[in-house]
Amino acid sequence: MKTPQGFIFSAVEAAIKKPGRKDLALICSKGDCAMAGMFTLNKVKAAPVLLDMQRIRSGKGNAIIVNSGNANACTGVRGMNDAVAMSESAASALGLKDSMVYVCSTGVIGTPMPIDRIKARIPELASKANRHSLMDVATAIMTTDTFAKTSHRQITVDGKKITISGICKGAGMISPNMATMLCFIMTDAAIQKIALKNALKNAVKRSFNRITIDGDMSTNDTVLAMANGAAGNEQITLKSDSYPKFEAALSNVAYELSRMIAKDGEGSTKLIEINLKNARNEKEAEKAAFVIANSLLVKTAFYGNDANWGRIMAALGRSGIALKENSIDIFINGVKVVSKGLTNRKDAEANRKLRTDEVKLVVDLKLGKNSARVLTCDISENYVRINAEYRT
Amino acid sequence: MKTPQGFIFSAVEAAIKKPGRKDLALICSKGDCAMAGMFTLNKVKAAPVLLDMQRIRSGKGNAIIVNSGNANACTGVRGMNDAVAMSESAASALGLKDSMVYVCSTGVIGTPMPIDRIKARIPELASKANRHSLMDVATAIMTTDTFAKTSHRQITVDGKKITISGICKGAGMISPNMATMLCFIMTDAAIQKIALKNALKNAVKRSFNRITIDGDMSTNDTVLAMANGAAGNEQITLKSDSYPKFEAALSNVAYELSRMIAKDGEGSTKLIEINLKNARNEKEAEKAAFVIANSLLVKTAFYGNDANWGRIMAALGRSGIALKENSIDIFINGVKVVSKGLTNRKDAEANRKLRTDEVKLVVDLKLGKNSARVLTCDISENYVRINAEYRT
Repeated sequence: MKTPQGFIFSAVEAAIKKPGRKDLALICSKGDCAMAGMFTLNKVKAAPVLLDMQRIRSGKGNAIIVNSGNANACTGVRGMNDAVAMSESAASALGLKDSMVYVCSTGVIGTPMPIDRIKARIPELASKANRHSLMDVATAIMTTDTFAKTSHRQITVDGKKITISGICKGAGMISPNMATMLCFIMTDAAIQKIALKNALKNAVKRSFNRITIDGDMSTNDTVLAMANGAAGNEQITLKSDSYPKFEAALSNVAYELSRMIAKDGEGSTKLIEINLKNARNEKEAEKAAFVIANSLLVKTAFYGNDANWGRIMAALGRSGIALKENSIDIFINGVKVVSKGLTNRKDAEANRKLRTDEVKLVVDLKLGKNSARVLTCDISENYVRINAEYRT
Repeated sequence: MKTPQGFIFSAVEAAIKKPGRKDLALICSKGDCAMAGMFTLNKVKAAPVLLDMQRIRSGKGNAIIVNSGNANACTGVRGMNDAVAMSESAASALGLKDSMVYVCSTGVIGTPMPIDRIKARIPELASKANRHSLMDVATAIMTTDTFAKTSHRQITVDGKKITISGICKGAGMISPNMATMLCFIMTDAAIQKIALKNALKNAVKRSFNRITIDGDMSTNDTVLAMANGAAGNEQITLKSDSYPKFEAALSNVAYELSRMIAKDGEGSTKLIEINLKNARNEKEAEKAAFVIANSLLVKTAFYGNDANWGRIMAALGRSGIALKENSIDIFINGVKVVSKGLTNRKDAEANRKLRTDEVKLVVDLKLGKNSARVLTCDISENYVRINAEYRT
């Protein structure tokens, strides 16, 4: 994977997770960055989320320290002290101001952080001796992820090559107990703070905000983007000709990462892309797509290679959006199973087409002109097994 | 089970389900009834639901014909013709007006009804030769239910004994493909139409509308109540002294039946009662209780006997209702696991208390004075198995 200029990466084992796995990592820029962030909407927010939400107001940052194995959520005053202590230790070791260091945590909720073990490893993490690759960081933040998730794009601005690289962890994505989704995007572009913020917001809207594993939302979801300007381009602003190109590249990185998260849903066997077409407006398209995506009955049907469109119709009906039953068409992996609200007698053919690891579901309401695409995965007995046994 | 006076029950095999199982049943009163009904809010409604919604406007009725095995949903014009044909055949065989016969269906969505086989058995169903018990009807309407669900209460009004009996089917409760919940309540009380309607509405509000298996809502959910006055009491009106007693008895029947549905959730091993206490208002209490009840992570944790309160906190947080994290207490089967938003270090004790088939979860927000109780069940690998294999 290509990585942007001027960033260093490091990962160590701090015995937060089981022995033998790195669980504490650092991303650090050689110079100050423009910084933007998006955070969970859950009212129960982990301490590091609350801390980062304060710091991101400056639009500036320099480093991210992140641990897996413990979410530092529902930990009260002690939790906030621990989050601050992590940033102070890292800032001190790196010679930065505290406020320039962001903290992220993912793991079990409600257990106090092993803060002494974490602090003890921070000098080593920050020292030159422990320089690793971005892939090492991507691996250290994994919980039940089955693969490390990375993506990058390169664009040229003013004749300068700009790299945008992202990593994320999902899997327990919407699983609050594993503290869900973390994503870090680094670029060497020079870009105005407000432009970075805007680009990130638009990128997240149609990527991370359009995926769902099981409908749960975590206390720790965080997306952070940092831009250090090391590429030497003229600063990109919202009005620059190069801005749309930058936003598109960032969106592509975010979309690719979000697709990996959906594909790696706990215990899943299929990536499911739901395209809700021709709704009255985009909000309704998104709403109905999410209701279908979160329907256990739809997920289990796809798992069973069953083109059970009745469950899709029922989910659509309870979504509450405007629809005309007798104008709905439904396609499963290209097979039209429902025509004008009625069976098209192609269930057997669609069942066969489901015997693959990617499902494209198209629901055409033929009502308006707005569409939305949501990514999810099927659900297997393994999902239940993983989540029934996670803490035991 | 006690059954009210003046009703006859009948059930036959019409080869809608697999051979050897009765799948067509009749409930008929010897005289006209006051009749009330509540129906699915799903925008995709089965043909019989649409038919009954028209007929219930009269507040009168005499018979219910019901089949299992086919939901007659997403079947268009033909479906409506079939529903009408069922009511016409039954009305003709019973010597009633069409408009006095209600039709209910539960089963697979999107497959045309085997209407000829059904019509062929209706004369036999209506004939004296085939008088069965209410239990036979309760059994004939089962789909993946593991037991027939019945309940009754008796009260005395004006020295007359009044019986209220109810049957229902659930299991695939929220499973639209099995076309979900049907409930029929019969009483020999003499009661004004508007009073019956009001009593049913209040009974359903805190019973059937407070249970959830998997968050899906079917195209066929129907609750019908019929009162034939055979007990000979003075007609109960909304202003009668006896009205509250009648409503309470009806509510008890509905609550008992809804509890059986939750207990019999597909592939479940535990009944879970969620009591969300001291919210700002009842609506918010209900909303948060439902978000917790539908959280897959909460359901799988309880299945695994894991007092994983972090998942409950996270579900609470994403419900969007008003809360103060540091004033929340959580009790699992009497064990206080969370005190003021923090761990009470009683997880191991709570885990042990979970090794039973009933879970009482109390979440105390200590914010206001309103509470709501929601019933659900846990989720096991069997839920996935049943729903992945239902049509195959």
